[in-house]
Amino acid sequence: MTGRTILVLNAGSSSIKFQLYDATAEGRLTRRFKGRLEGIGSARPRLLAWDGAGAVLEDRGFRPEEADEVEEAQAAIGGWLVGAMGGPPDAIGHRVVHGGADYTAPVLADAAVLAALEALSPLAPLHQPHNLAPIRSILRRRPELPQVACFDTAFHATMPDLARRFAIPEALHARGIRRYGFHGLSYEYIAGRLPEVAPEIARGRVIVAHLGSGCSACAMVDGRSVQSTMGFSALDGLPMGTRPGQLDAGVVLHLCRDGMGAAAIEHLLYHRCGLLGLSGISADVRELLASPAPGARLALDYFADRTAQAFGALAAAMGGLDGIVFTAGVGENAAPVRAMIAARCAWLGVVLDEARNAAHAPRISADGSRLPVHVIPTDEEGMVARHVVEVLRREGRWA
Amino acid sequence: MTGRTILVLNAGSSSIKFQLYDATAEGRLTRRFKGRLEGIGSARPRLLAWDGAGAVLEDRGFRPEEADEVEEAQAAIGGWLVGAMGGPPDAIGHRVVHGGADYTAPVLADAAVLAALEALSPLAPLHQPHNLAPIRSILRRRPELPQVACFDTAFHATMPDLARRFAIPEALHARGIRRYGFHGLSYEYIAGRLPEVAPEIARGRVIVAHLGSGCSACAMVDGRSVQSTMGFSALDGLPMGTRPGQLDAGVVLHLCRDGMGAAAIEHLLYHRCGLLGLSGISADVRELLASPAPGARLALDYFADRTAQAFGALAAAMGGLDGIVFTAGVGENAAPVRAMIAARCAWLGVVLDEARNAAHAPRISADGSRLPVHVIPTDEEGMVARHVVEVLRREGRWA
Repeated sequence: MTGRTILVLNAGSSSIKFQLYDATAEGRLTRRFKGRLEGIGSARPRLLAWDGAGAVLEDRGFRPEEADEVEEAQAAIGGWLVGAMGGPPDAIGHRVVHGGADYTAPVLADAAVLAALEALSPLAPLHQPHNLAPIRSILRRRPELPQVACFDTAFHATMPDLARRFAIPEALHARGIRRYGFHGLSYEYIAGRLPEVAPEIARGRVIVAHLGSGCSACAMVDGRSVQSTMGFSALDGLPMGTRPGQLDAGVVLHLCRDGMGAAAIEHLLYHRCGLLGLSGISADVRELLASPAPGARLALDYFADRTAQAFGALAAAMGGLDGIVFTAGVGENAAPVRAMIAARCAWLGVVLDEARNAAHAPRISADGSRLPVHVIPTDEEGMVARHVVEVLRREGRWA
Repeated sequence: MTGRTILVLNAGSSSIKFQLYDATAEGRLTRRFKGRLEGIGSARPRLLAWDGAGAVLEDRGFRPEEADEVEEAQAAIGGWLVGAMGGPPDAIGHRVVHGGADYTAPVLADAAVLAALEALSPLAPLHQPHNLAPIRSILRRRPELPQVACFDTAFHATMPDLARRFAIPEALHARGIRRYGFHGLSYEYIAGRLPEVAPEIARGRVIVAHLGSGCSACAMVDGRSVQSTMGFSALDGLPMGTRPGQLDAGVVLHLCRDGMGAAAIEHLLYHRCGLLGLSGISADVRELLASPAPGARLALDYFADRTAQAFGALAAAMGGLDGIVFTAGVGENAAPVRAMIAARCAWLGVVLDEARNAAHAPRISADGSRLPVHVIPTDEEGMVARHVVEVLRREGRWA
């Protein structure tokens, strides 16, 4: 295998993120640039990109009509990318939220696979169609270009049957209404890092808390997922920026009975709840931490309280706990939030070292803490790029 | 106060339970008889009653049209009760599921109170109207007869604001979409018993698991509720006979999007899920324990797994745990289920004594168990009767 380029795409409803990697003949990856088109459908779409050293490569506004819909935005970004890459990449890796029950590992996306993944869209209507749109359009225009789909559900394929269940009739379970778990690319990356950065707990019972704009926590035993707070949809589990996390199903039923349509309930639950709903101020933890408003404090307290309760539940699922890992935007950067959660985990044996926590040190627990607590930056896009190399080698497409 | 009789009614959609108490001048209560009319709306309605010593007083079938609707059934039972009591009682106590945000203690139910309670029916549409129907009809026919409404939500009035919240906009919280908690009469009774039967933990952090056909667990600190697994509706939290317990809100949304109407979803979630849905066999723990079918085992394993996870979450909410209490039908009688849950709580310091557990002993933990585990039979109707005495004395109706 000679040097190749791998483009990683993470296409959502309001933003498209991209990274370009150079892969050496040995499969070693270095990032050449990364960026995102944000504000799709908003008044001010904007393309931002940085080179591998972090210098700004591009900062360009678009007219709203140039990125009004996801398809237009993908075309706009495609043009820019071809120029920036100096030609097409050798392969593309896609983050795809849902692999369903069948796709439990990354896969080369041909037309048949694409059709199967499109059939899963009802399970993740707000994410799956956007993730798949660029696969479809590239498959049409450049069928020879290998594309690899990497699933956020796949890492949780090791969960035991009991963890996948809801207490609903078997017929509904068979129709796919089960607990899948998400953020799997992040957890897989962390699981791979554990033996290096936290060897004392890598084989043990670990809670990894992926706290970003979406949040979930994964119970890992020996680096494998055995339970996740996120279940069937991206709504459940921990509170998030604009999503509620755990919510009484009776609330949805009540809103429904009250005459609120499914589309309106969906909009409410995905976009108006969580930290934004509780605070009435912002979905952004940084803004909440800076605000003196009681609503901001309520939202942060709630976040810490429910996250700590979820840690208790996950510890129970594993029959005990050997360590905690924080990752993703909030988990890596919001020291006061980590401190609030850790304080509520004192009963589990957590003692934080304030200075280490403030410095986002790799290990933020005190030396005497019974439970070690780590901060490990995640790299979902890097994980996708690694999967691209693996899949193409396995399939014999790359020597 | 001279001797009086107190009738306690617990009127549901498919059954009406009743108990008659004699209250001495000092307010001491003894039960004269108890019974229930079951199978309302079924092909074989049936009235059963036992005297204070447990001897059968009545076992009578009704024609379906005599108890087709709850109102007819209440009339049928009313006739029988008047005869059995030998005249009207001196007061009636009602178990009412929902007191909303305002009724946080038992209250004398006059027309104004009744109207306020009826306004809460949308919060518990399957229970509240049935609970209130006999109050309304007795108020019309015997306005002089004191009736006391006792709420399943009231005991949880001590929960901190954070425990009452969902991560939803303030406007919805203000409209009553909040976590109330239920089974409060049971928890109140247990809280009252703790200083007598488990003084070593009565002031501490205790999980009380009310496991019946409905199930919830309450986190109590010093005998007061600080958190409950049941929230807004009777669907949330622990798995139940026919209700799912904790369920991704996205599942309801998905069913809704899939074209299933609110009424059908409600029927599914209240009557076809839980142990019945998972096992495909029965909602009854005794039948599941006796069945060799894999579905029965799955349902019981799920029940134990999710209950143990909920214990972990409640322990986190209290910052630790000093003891566990099992109560209600399953909690008092299903030793194998208690053992399955306890085994999953070993990490919390639970060691069960097998012989004590099999015998349903008051304390079923081993002597060396770090956490004591108790079985305390609950008495929700007795709690209602005590509230009747208290309220009528407080109101000056009874000397």
